[in-house]
Amino acid sequence: MPKFKGRSIVSLKDMEKKEILHLMKKAGEIKSGKLKDVLKGKVIASLFFEPSTRTRLSFESAVLGQGGSVFGFADPGASSAKKGESLSDTIKNVMGYCDAIVMRHFIEGAARRAAEISTVPVVNGGDGANQHPTQTFLDLFTMFEKKGSLDGKVIGMMGDLKYGRTIHSLAMALTHFDVKLHFISPKQLSVPEHYIEYLKEKKIDFQESSVETCGKELDFLYCTRLQKERFFDPMEYEKVAGSYRIDKEALEYLKADTYIMHPLPRVDEITVEVDDDPRALYFEQAHNGVPTRAALLGLVTGRI
Amino acid sequence: MPKFKGRSIVSLKDMEKKEILHLMKKAGEIKSGKLKDVLKGKVIASLFFEPSTRTRLSFESAVLGQGGSVFGFADPGASSAKKGESLSDTIKNVMGYCDAIVMRHFIEGAARRAAEISTVPVVNGGDGANQHPTQTFLDLFTMFEKKGSLDGKVIGMMGDLKYGRTIHSLAMALTHFDVKLHFISPKQLSVPEHYIEYLKEKKIDFQESSVETCGKELDFLYCTRLQKERFFDPMEYEKVAGSYRIDKEALEYLKADTYIMHPLPRVDEITVEVDDDPRALYFEQAHNGVPTRAALLGLVTGRI
Amino acid sequence: MPKFKGRSIVSLKDMEKKEILHLMKKAGEIKSGKLKDVLKGKVIASLFFEPSTRTRLSFESAVLGQGGSVFGFADPGASSAKKGESLSDTIKNVMGYCDAIVMRHFIEGAARRAAEISTVPVVNGGDGANQHPTQTFLDLFTMFEKKGSLDGKVIGMMGDLKYGRTIHSLAMALTHFDVKLHFISPKQLSVPEHYIEYLKEKKIDFQESSVETCGKELDFLYCTRLQKERFFDPMEYEKVAGSYRIDKEALEYLKADTYIMHPLPRVDEITVEVDDDPRALYFEQAHNGVPTRAALLGLVTGRI
Repeated sequence: MPKFKGRSIVSLKDMEKKEILHLMKKAGEIKSGKLKDVLKGKVIASLFFEPSTRTRLSFESAVLGQGGSVFGFADPGASSAKKGESLSDTIKNVMGYCDAIVMRHFIEGAARRAAEISTVPVVNGGDGANQHPTQTFLDLFTMFEKKGSLDGKVIGMMGDLKYGRTIHSLAMALTHFDVKLHFISPKQLSVPEHYIEYLKEKKIDFQESSVETCGKELDFLYCTRLQKERFFDPMEYEKVAGSYRIDKEALEYLKADTYIMHPLPRVDEITVEVDDDPRALYFEQAHNGVPTRAALLGLVTGRI
Repeated sequence: MPKFKGRSIVSLKDMEKKEILHLMKKAGEIKSGKLKDVLKGKVIASLFFEPSTRTRLSFESAVLGQGGSVFGFADPGASSAKKGESLSDTIKNVMGYCDAIVMRHFIEGAARRAAEISTVPVVNGGDGANQHPTQTFLDLFTMFEKKGSLDGKVIGMMGDLKYGRTIHSLAMALTHFDVKLHFISPKQLSVPEHYIEYLKEKKIDFQESSVETCGKELDFLYCTRLQKERFFDPMEYEKVAGSYRIDKEALEYLKADTYIMHPLPRVDEITVEVDDDPRALYFEQAHNGVPTRAALLGLVTGRI
Repeated sequence: MPKFKGRSIVSLKDMEKKEILHLMKKAGEIKSGKLKDVLKGKVIASLFFEPSTRTRLSFESAVLGQGGSVFGFADPGASSAKKGESLSDTIKNVMGYCDAIVMRHFIEGAARRAAEISTVPVVNGGDGANQHPTQTFLDLFTMFEKKGSLDGKVIGMMGDLKYGRTIHSLAMALTHFDVKLHFISPKQLSVPEHYIEYLKEKKIDFQESSVETCGKELDFLYCTRLQKERFFDPMEYEKVAGSYRIDKEALEYLKADTYIMHPLPRVDEITVEVDDDPRALYFEQAHNGVPTRAALLGLVTGRI
């Protein structure tokens, strides 16, 4: 059985396939109520050097709902960092009075650095544009929950595939499974070359597509936002944005059981009229952050 | 018996008289210690899109004191709203990982909108200049506690009766009972016409008065602040403010058992020398927010 | 046995020697796990009118780790104070719904004022440049833990001895014991005359020294930061700062068991290369804030 106790989770690369599957299983047991109080008596530090309400509330609810307690700060303005304390010193301090640290930081690599120093497990809640592993865990959990297995599944990834952190992490995680990927993006926002190389190396079947052409194949369509500021020419943005927006009309290109996912927050890349469609999975997906994060914290603190 | 489980409480109008009385009874049982742990195991989201320390701390203490736990944010700067997420999306997200939502918002109607969307109960902690029902519940609870019944009681309302949200809510709630009202305010801050119409329709006995003329009749004198900025002419404010201030001298116009109430914070409309008078009820009134809010949350989450 | 129940702890002067020793003993029992859940069911208000992440997190962890719960605010921006409410009114309000108040305030004497008003114990978490008693308790606890007793011990105090609040408090606390003190500071930042008088009155053996001359005598070297802005001439600062910095080289002047303490945060007055030395005690010292504060809150709320 995979060993999690005492481990920090900074990047997807920290976990092997069997470990990911174990986490999924435990998250499922928490969601169903079979596993309870997996953080009872545990005190978790929640250090958000960069504000992120959604991620923070999800982690905090995960802790509280499992009988744990949580303290920390929600934004850098309220932190000692402002007084010039180094990240290392903050971690060395806080690790002395909690059972695990959840942290989000604006600097890439900050979570890795914290994990190297800390004597208690550090869970990365996002470090700059780098890693956000618990987002990927909840994405995978949601996919497993809906389809039972990922092998043989076809997943479309749409929007900003160049800068989208969740896209990169998810794609790498999916290389553990026998999936086919469709990339749907404007040329200037396509998947970076080194990820392409990685996918080839892992013998993942992928291709560039459009919703119109691949929609009837997809088990999941994972959408992300096109950010206007990524385009040199605003006119260019206006021209292409419509092709990467899911509205009532776009739904018709999908199968009756193609689930639509999104890491949230969304702006207008999925219109609100889609929310009531049974294939709209993004809020349920967000809710899965709670059992997934609870399972991860339960595992690393040794209560599971 | 009134059914509360699963209901949102956005406005006083959401509750019938018998429901209000049931809430008062349960709040009393919590205050006396007869009812305990009515939020045990419940996780409450506390979403303050507008800061309000007093209301927030009162709600949070209510939850914690009854064995529940609470997560959320204290001000909009720390919320996803800043990233352009719609209120609907925030609610759809958070409702997935809590048992009830307490929210305060700067926009009128925000709580109603949230309640329409949410699958868990929403309790309005104030929406703009509109509703703040739990303030009225604690006001009523305090009156019941001191006088046993409201029927036959005489209540003075003083200060800004035009813009005072707590005044309007309380006046409407009091129409359920056989009370007499005295309105004590400068002309430009008198009760708006549509509330007057409502009181007439409900056959409530009311009149304009001064503390000097009605003080010896009053069971309660409910004070609010005159805000300087409501006056076109600052001189006018200076001229009238003194007539709507409770100090040692003003106390003499009251009965030995006329209780003085105030929603707080007060500035100088009640002088600190009054605080030690046994009739000064405003801090005790504020403390009653805790059992009242605990009872309401216990009822809507179904633990009571 | 000393009586703590219901008492406020604002200043070191509020506590006699036997009370300090009792607190140390109870903190030790909490640290070893002999005493548990000493705040079970207690609701503690944590009111930080001035941000102080380290102190706040330490207090909150202390409460949560002992089964208590905590609510409050982390910075003045989120507090009612902004709306013009007086400190007295805030305290009169909050005391109505908690078992004890931990507060930090930017005004000297604020905690004393709060303690005079409050019907629940107030624990001072720092008021301006005045008192910060729990820092001194954790300093003493750390010294006791390492050396068993303070009698006969030699303590060096280094850095800014003129403005350093923690230095003054610790020096006063140490007058309860048979210690010898060495003061190591630039002339313009030496111990103020009235503290010198106090030490003489208490017959404490003290002298001005340098690390080089007294290092081999010291049981503890308590360092603080030299703040550049205390010097009229920045050149002067550059000239002297090096003499009050602990680096690998400076370690050689100390005994093999001279412990190095610091109230944190440190900037460069102790270099990071020192952190791995077994004599570097400052992080362990910071961690001791948790059992010490838990013990103090357990005592004043009457659970111990």
